[in-house]
Amino acid sequence: MAKIIESIPNISEGRNQEVIEACVDQIRNTPGCTLLDYSSDETHNRSVITYMGSPEACEEASVKLAKKAVELIDLTKHEGGHPRMGCVDVMPFVPLKDVTVEECVELSKRVGERIAAEADLPVFLYEDSATAKHRQNLAKIRKGQFEGMAEKVKEEKWCPDFGGARIHPTGGVVAVGARPPLIAFNINLATDNVEIAKKIANIIREVKGGFKCVKAMGLLLEERNVAQVSINMTNYSITPLHRVLELVRREAARYGVNVIGTEVIGLAPMRAFLDAAEYYLQIEDFDPDNQVIENHLL
Amino acid sequence: MAKIIESIPNISEGRNQEVIEACVDQIRNTPGCTLLDYSSDETHNRSVITYMGSPEACEEASVKLAKKAVELIDLTKHEGGHPRMGCVDVMPFVPLKDVTVEECVELSKRVGERIAAEADLPVFLYEDSATAKHRQNLAKIRKGQFEGMAEKVKEEKWCPDFGGARIHPTGGVVAVGARPPLIAFNINLATDNVEIAKKIANIIREVKGGFKCVKAMGLLLEERNVAQVSINMTNYSITPLHRVLELVRREAARYGVNVIGTEVIGLAPMRAFLDAAEYYLQIEDFDPDNQVIENHLL
Repeated sequence: MAKIIESIPNISEGRNQEVIEACVDQIRNTPGCTLLDYSSDETHNRSVITYMGSPEACEEASVKLAKKAVELIDLTKHEGGHPRMGCVDVMPFVPLKDVTVEECVELSKRVGERIAAEADLPVFLYEDSATAKHRQNLAKIRKGQFEGMAEKVKEEKWCPDFGGARIHPTGGVVAVGARPPLIAFNINLATDNVEIAKKIANIIREVKGGFKCVKAMGLLLEERNVAQVSINMTNYSITPLHRVLELVRREAARYGVNVIGTEVIGLAPMRAFLDAAEYYLQIEDFDPDNQVIENHLL
Repeated sequence: MAKIIESIPNISEGRNQEVIEACVDQIRNTPGCTLLDYSSDETHNRSVITYMGSPEACEEASVKLAKKAVELIDLTKHEGGHPRMGCVDVMPFVPLKDVTVEECVELSKRVGERIAAEADLPVFLYEDSATAKHRQNLAKIRKGQFEGMAEKVKEEKWCPDFGGARIHPTGGVVAVGARPPLIAFNINLATDNVEIAKKIANIIREVKGGFKCVKAMGLLLEERNVAQVSINMTNYSITPLHRVLELVRREAARYGVNVIGTEVIGLAPMRAFLDAAEYYLQIEDFDPDNQVIENHLL
């Protein structure tokens, strides 16, 4: 069985196509890696690259990408709507097939060490790779952003894991870590009242006492005039899609509002959908590894 | 992309382990084939073998299996509860990956011709491979069974497609054909009243005017004292699982009865479950080929 890891590096460039393509080429040109998707946001001035490969191929591609990004991206001149602290801002590794989270943690440590040594970029280990509880959350690590990072890393609790208590003068610092697959799941309501979406978001969010591994906010989809509960599911095996949707349906009904549809943004693992099918179809003793034909092909 | 076909040959032996293993060995020993499952029913005196492979590997395995079966299985001495007409009774070919039904039809014709020539077994093409409408349905071809087949094949409308208007004296005749994946889907009701299951089965069955590509019967699961609607879904892309389940739920409610669970027997394609997830999760613009990560690994 071949081990396969997914990686979704974010680079701090969303406007200059030459720079973006030169970075994406580092994935394209690494044997054993398959580029799945990449997309750029000009307002955020940021690009997201999605690829998969063997642990060895992901390690090579990660180091090559960091070297290319530090060469081409200068954060002293970077403007954009999205918080950022490095030329490559974050590099998550997600177990896809025949790989454990622990193996992704090991990979992230090898990558972090090499990026510090070979690209001269200090590295924070985050999420499941974090070396302390206060360093798990990316937003907390990134707080202060590139501009504040040179000072922040001098504090002992914010010293990078690799590369020393410093930043690269133009490239900043990078977060590298293992995490479970994240699913972006949005639920659209049959109302233009964004307050209802916000109330429901607060009910389901972990930080407000809702479901574990659920981040959510309410917003208005202007083009459709539809209120949306926008959700990040950070571990669908702990809180599955159907449980969130059923609660949102129930809470929306309290306002006389139906769910008109949902959106799964980007990629998600087969298992997340199989879990929903098993729940709604009420399948007894379901064994996806054996009963789903395609699992014998993987 | 590798072409992969599933085949589910049924042999008329469910008791003699040596014979069964010798037949299954023909799959095991064919390079390019993966044995997924095999199971025997002593009452039916019949075994079902499930495997997958490239079109070329399936062709080789099919011919080898027919030769072994005609060597070891003597239908003049066969007794069992299941209708049968051949030592290998039926050989369906199902498109799994990067293969069309038309390619499975072509494969079935090559296999049929070779089985007639190399195993001396006359062959009927059935289902999507049938050469006339009245020869699509396996039950109609098999009517009269082994004992009546020598006479039946003398009628022009029942002359085998390959091997002449005759049967093999001990091996009978074989049906070979292409068909979509079949899903065995049972729905268990919160009642021991089998009449309710029978009434619902009659509502959903195609032959009684119900859903296209749905075969169903009502029965009592004696070990659990539960009435069951037992269903064969012969084309889930025409009639999906969720549509059948929702109608059964609705009809059962008319008797004040709930669905307590369902069973998917054996293997089913990922897409059948993704369709259910898409429906129940109300996903807009779902694109499984791109959005389900595993589809990039296949």
